[in-house]
Amino acid sequence: MKKIVSIQGIKGSFHHIVAKTYFDDNIEIDECMSFDKLVDNLITKKSDVAIMALENSIAGSILPNYALIDKFNLHIIGEYYLDIQHNLMALPGQTIADIEEVYSHPMALLQCKAFFKAYPHIKLIEDKDTAETADRISKNNLKGVAAVASKVAAEIFNLEILAESIQTIKENETRFVIVKTKNSVLEESEINKASLRFVVEHKRGSLASVLNVLSDCRMSLTKIQSLPKIETPWKYAFFVDVTFSKYSHFEKAKSILNIMVKEFKILGEYKNAKL
Amino acid sequence: MKKIVSIQGIKGSFHHIVAKTYFDDNIEIDECMSFDKLVDNLITKKSDVAIMALENSIAGSILPNYALIDKFNLHIIGEYYLDIQHNLMALPGQTIADIEEVYSHPMALLQCKAFFKAYPHIKLIEDKDTAETADRISKNNLKGVAAVASKVAAEIFNLEILAESIQTIKENETRFVIVKTKNSVLEESEINKASLRFVVEHKRGSLASVLNVLSDCRMSLTKIQSLPKIETPWKYAFFVDVTFSKYSHFEKAKSILNIMVKEFKILGEYKNAKL
Repeated sequence: MKKIVSIQGIKGSFHHIVAKTYFDDNIEIDECMSFDKLVDNLITKKSDVAIMALENSIAGSILPNYALIDKFNLHIIGEYYLDIQHNLMALPGQTIADIEEVYSHPMALLQCKAFFKAYPHIKLIEDKDTAETADRISKNNLKGVAAVASKVAAEIFNLEILAESIQTIKENETRFVIVKTKNSVLEESEINKASLRFVVEHKRGSLASVLNVLSDCRMSLTKIQSLPKIETPWKYAFFVDVTFSKYSHFEKAKSILNIMVKEFKILGEYKNAKL
Repeated sequence: MKKIVSIQGIKGSFHHIVAKTYFDDNIEIDECMSFDKLVDNLITKKSDVAIMALENSIAGSILPNYALIDKFNLHIIGEYYLDIQHNLMALPGQTIADIEEVYSHPMALLQCKAFFKAYPHIKLIEDKDTAETADRISKNNLKGVAAVASKVAAEIFNLEILAESIQTIKENETRFVIVKTKNSVLEESEINKASLRFVVEHKRGSLASVLNVLSDCRMSLTKIQSLPKIETPWKYAFFVDVTFSKYSHFEKAKSILNIMVKEFKILGEYKNAKL
């Protein structure tokens, strides 16, 4: 039976590219128009696994997705870094001068803001998904309208690329995580990265103490993100990613943190995709 | 001459409420439809000071605003915490059953999602500003349309409140900062909070060492936020808020960090508004 993989957006979206690359071809894609829907399909077992963008090298953390993973106790079983290149595309034969409206995901439009400053006649409109707009332009034969999306989307929906790689900052990567409702068990020797979540006491030096322990246990901190604890204004939970060379070092860190912090949760133990 | 205060949104917005409360009445409001525009008006001296939402007790940091403050070297001269209560409002005489579309800021809609689950006939549409929709409903006498906005907006635009305090989590506060292009000099005795920005070396324990110094200098960490360094994928800058009882302790911390970290910047020294 084919594995059902939930993605945000439709085929041709960046999530779709990750799904195709991370898994073999024997998958069925479940297109979701929001991350809420994606998590919903995962926990109601309409799908087996889901792909979620978690942070971007320019815009930073996608905070609502951290919150979703925490709230629904999802397990991170892997990660994937994708180079994000945005392209302006429209019906074949259209030129930039013909384009009056550009639709895309807010994040994509934000990353291409400088490009569009040179075209003040173009109205930028926020949309749910990058690829979905490409699909709509193609299906409805929409003239004067362009999408900002991946090359894969241009291919799937037979659009012509008017301008390539239009994002302001050329080095643009997004980190995606692969999540399930249950942990999948890897061999210890394969695990060299973990995502943790904890709360510290509200007293001076409490976060420093935790980071000292992680450092003493030879954990390298690759990311720290604080997120408000719901219902308790201005108290934070910390989300930390660590990499390590030996699983036994990580086990030691875990056992100390277990005693030291509150609301300790392992969000996932997996293979570092960034070498 | 009246001080010109840039706000995100129009009169009746939460930013407007903060401007009215933080300053005396002798101000002129500069309504901006985006945070980019607000910063633009500030640096081109069209306004004297600006109000920016920076974090919310439910949704967390507003990352693009951290990036704007950093990029344009703005100075935080003060802060304000506002209790955010969302209300559903429409033309007088309308009932919830009449409402087909609700427009508001994405953050407001997100915070009221649970409320709208009980009204599946209502379409939620993301808009630029909470108050602007209220204004539009009023001006164009729009039936079947409601806004999610502040009580002040309902008063200003003569709308009727259909449901009060509809956000899922009742304790909902936003922290606003008051920013200028130049630092305003407070008496040292008045300063008990500061916002810092720095980059640490990419080696194990480097962030822990900085937090240890802050703790040793009797700084209480109230917030830590990491943000990607533009053009250098997966390197982070840290944004830290500290509170302290003596300015001399803060001076000591500053002088050590100055030697210890890279790209050290004081974003502001001001009075803690949270007691």
